[in-house]
Amino acid sequence: MEDIEIDAVATPELDDPVLIEGLPGVGHVGKLAAEHLLEEFDSELVRRVYATEFPPQVGVDEEGVAELTCAEFHAVETDGADLLVLTGDHQAGSNAGHYRLTSTFLDIAEEFGATRAFALGGVPTGELVEEYTVLGAVSDAALLDDLKDAGVEFRADEPAGGIVGVSGLVLGLGGRRGFDAACLMGETSGYLVDPKSARAVLETLEAVLGLSVDYESLEDRAEEMEEVVGKIREMQEGPAVPDDDLRYIG
Amino acid sequence: MEDIEIDAVATPELDDPVLIEGLPGVGHVGKLAAEHLLEEFDSELVRRVYATEFPPQVGVDEEGVAELTCAEFHAVETDGADLLVLTGDHQAGSNAGHYRLTSTFLDIAEEFGATRAFALGGVPTGELVEEYTVLGAVSDAALLDDLKDAGVEFRADEPAGGIVGVSGLVLGLGGRRGFDAACLMGETSGYLVDPKSARAVLETLEAVLGLSVDYESLEDRAEEMEEVVGKIREMQEGPAVPDDDLRYIG
Amino acid sequence: MEDIEIDAVATPELDDPVLIEGLPGVGHVGKLAAEHLLEEFDSELVRRVYATEFPPQVGVDEEGVAELTCAEFHAVETDGADLLVLTGDHQAGSNAGHYRLTSTFLDIAEEFGATRAFALGGVPTGELVEEYTVLGAVSDAALLDDLKDAGVEFRADEPAGGIVGVSGLVLGLGGRRGFDAACLMGETSGYLVDPKSARAVLETLEAVLGLSVDYESLEDRAEEMEEVVGKIREMQEGPAVPDDDLRYIG
Amino acid sequence: MEDIEIDAVATPELDDPVLIEGLPGVGHVGKLAAEHLLEEFDSELVRRVYATEFPPQVGVDEEGVAELTCAEFHAVETDGADLLVLTGDHQAGSNAGHYRLTSTFLDIAEEFGATRAFALGGVPTGELVEEYTVLGAVSDAALLDDLKDAGVEFRADEPAGGIVGVSGLVLGLGGRRGFDAACLMGETSGYLVDPKSARAVLETLEAVLGLSVDYESLEDRAEEMEEVVGKIREMQEGPAVPDDDLRYIG
Repeated sequence: MEDIEIDAVATPELDDPVLIEGLPGVGHVGKLAAEHLLEEFDSELVRRVYATEFPPQVGVDEEGVAELTCAEFHAVETDGADLLVLTGDHQAGSNAGHYRLTSTFLDIAEEFGATRAFALGGVPTGELVEEYTVLGAVSDAALLDDLKDAGVEFRADEPAGGIVGVSGLVLGLGGRRGFDAACLMGETSGYLVDPKSARAVLETLEAVLGLSVDYESLEDRAEEMEEVVGKIREMQEGPAVPDDDLRYIG
Repeated sequence: MEDIEIDAVATPELDDPVLIEGLPGVGHVGKLAAEHLLEEFDSELVRRVYATEFPPQVGVDEEGVAELTCAEFHAVETDGADLLVLTGDHQAGSNAGHYRLTSTFLDIAEEFGATRAFALGGVPTGELVEEYTVLGAVSDAALLDDLKDAGVEFRADEPAGGIVGVSGLVLGLGGRRGFDAACLMGETSGYLVDPKSARAVLETLEAVLGLSVDYESLEDRAEEMEEVVGKIREMQEGPAVPDDDLRYIG
Repeated sequence: MEDIEIDAVATPELDDPVLIEGLPGVGHVGKLAAEHLLEEFDSELVRRVYATEFPPQVGVDEEGVAELTCAEFHAVETDGADLLVLTGDHQAGSNAGHYRLTSTFLDIAEEFGATRAFALGGVPTGELVEEYTVLGAVSDAALLDDLKDAGVEFRADEPAGGIVGVSGLVLGLGGRRGFDAACLMGETSGYLVDPKSARAVLETLEAVLGLSVDYESLEDRAEEMEEVVGKIREMQEGPAVPDDDLRYIG
Repeated sequence: MEDIEIDAVATPELDDPVLIEGLPGVGHVGKLAAEHLLEEFDSELVRRVYATEFPPQVGVDEEGVAELTCAEFHAVETDGADLLVLTGDHQAGSNAGHYRLTSTFLDIAEEFGATRAFALGGVPTGELVEEYTVLGAVSDAALLDDLKDAGVEFRADEPAGGIVGVSGLVLGLGGRRGFDAACLMGETSGYLVDPKSARAVLETLEAVLGLSVDYESLEDRAEEMEEVVGKIREMQEGPAVPDDDLRYIG
């Protein structure tokens, strides 16, 4: 097996598509957001990327059929821009693996004619989030104004430790190749899967790319998570504690 | 030394052989099962596979002679199908190593004309097992019916974390190459070497491949393990505790 | 992406420049010292070095613009020797990565005509340091006298565990290539960022290379650190403890 | 830098030399034994081996001069066989690195015409050792008798976990290349540097290779260790405890 193998499942013509990356990370915000786009719009699987850097693992579906760990690109037609959505269950297992995989992902995006990229993710606050601010970072200062207009906040030197993993490299390597790349990071506690933060990120994308997204199914997942939060709270503090006192989970 | 070196010890003609993989894993179920096949049938060592991904280690035999860590293929003639049985004492030491070794194993199986593969292993339940169910996963939905007929259970999205290591990749990489591949996982506590679970897996193979296996020696090992369990129980709970209360070991 | 990529930003003529390495390490002594040289003298960015061995990460600046992790070379004109100053936020992530990166760094230094190299760093004492001794090690015994004249101490078999990372390899690999290489290690507690130790190292460089450095801004940072130390002391021991009793922090 | 670089310092003619490997390991038995040979006989440094698999590190000598981490071969003339003695301060940092380095070591030994190899080491017993038995393992059963005659013990399937690291691979890879290779493992507690175990191993070599070794300096080190043991015992048990009760250290 080669270190990276690409299955070209389909190669539709796309109109100046925008790369949307949503691999696993803090609060699964990016992954939830990207998968919600695949649910809400017509999408077509176009590429599978296998890599020896991924865990040596298969997932098993509801029938009992195994599929080798991979990342997938779907072409998505929306009422606004065409999208090329990158999802998967794993990141790479080493520094060099992250660089090689992201390079491959950008190669594929270029092959479909993409020149813009959004890396979706979460930024941990350590507290339960009330207002879901979306924090941003860009590959080029010329991209700042449009994103600020869409409500994205830019804070000096934040996130403090930089942006790590494929999302960071979509900016770093993408920027070096000439992509207009931005990272949209929804604030999230960092302790729980966070569909509300994913919604905040998607609402930013709606404004920037002229989409209109339906959030019903994401709301359902958010309600499920609320119940989980409620149960954890009961287990830890008893049922009578008022909301205001609930600051931390975990 | 090359990253992988193959010693071609013998190259007998085999009739549509079935690859049986039994490397170390949960409860040593796969390894016990594969080694039992080598004990019960006539077998011939055909390939040794050395790899820099294996631990830098030799084993020492009863005489004091050292042998470099390797995986071995034996050709096995049974009353049913011809088998190509893969055993060894180690898995690879990195993600990429698992992919490269499994690719090499599948190359060798193809060289002998194999088109079917069974990866044998255990699935941990966390409890002492009373009824040894065999759980399955397949590379292709067309393989499901035969295995269900042989009593294999398929449960949606189980095992939960997917199937990791060479067994998973025999399905994942094997399936991508066109092998009809299945993983047979005997339920086992996960705390002890489990010859009974290995027997359950082998009984499934008997049904699917038309073999008949004698289990006397495996029964002896199972009895030894029963004694170990009994001693652990005595040490932990005193000798008078009735069986029904014994749920967990460890 | 290649394993290592070099951006040639500028290629000024330098007069027998001296390589000064100041990557992160104990007490950030080397990094503080190198960055102080960039602040105090006219400097020009000449090379950026990207590597798949670095963490897969971008930093975000005060505007919100991301920059891919890299090491940077600046050409620095001083009143004494010309300098080629190597700084960055990260070391490599593996043994082999350290060797490959340092080889690249030395290639670049040779390209600019450097034949001398100073690796700056700290050596941990485990105690608060009163007198900032600078410990040395050299690639060639012929370099000892000049450094001893400048006040550098050489102690048999110290530092005990050798010198690890890029600083060690600037000596080890640099020496093998014919560089006159020395490591200057300021004593430091090892528990805190230490601008005073950085100053001690720079004062040695001043003497050896005939520079004159202004330390005002480094003094400011040292005073900030004094305040931090004072607060830690108050928190741990109460405000009335006399200085003499303060031996350990941490 | 290449992954492995060899400095050919000298290439004397040797008469059927025997490779003696003594890199760091349990109780530093192999390293002590090999270094003692270099002290007691006339020796000449013939090869230095540098590798990116070694730690990125220099050692500093008594003058303050740094030397890059390496392994060294010395040609040693004795009253018996000519020896090629391999020593160093480090083993490799990965599985593949162990294989590659050992292959290089065997290449060098072949270049000097060696066909026999002894890997020296310790085997941990977990107890203070009274009688220093030397345990053996060989690459070929034909080597057993000579070693048994020299007092080496061979125990079925011991050491239980096999032999790991360069010593194991000198047997495993050496045997595959046709070397007559043996591992001599002195029993040692495993808790302390053990010059007495090193002496036991060397006495075996004396018998097998027809050497006569003087042990005075090794005795001195052994006495130093006895004092260390005595102090530990006093600290733990008080000075009046009789020797017979001293079974474990640590």
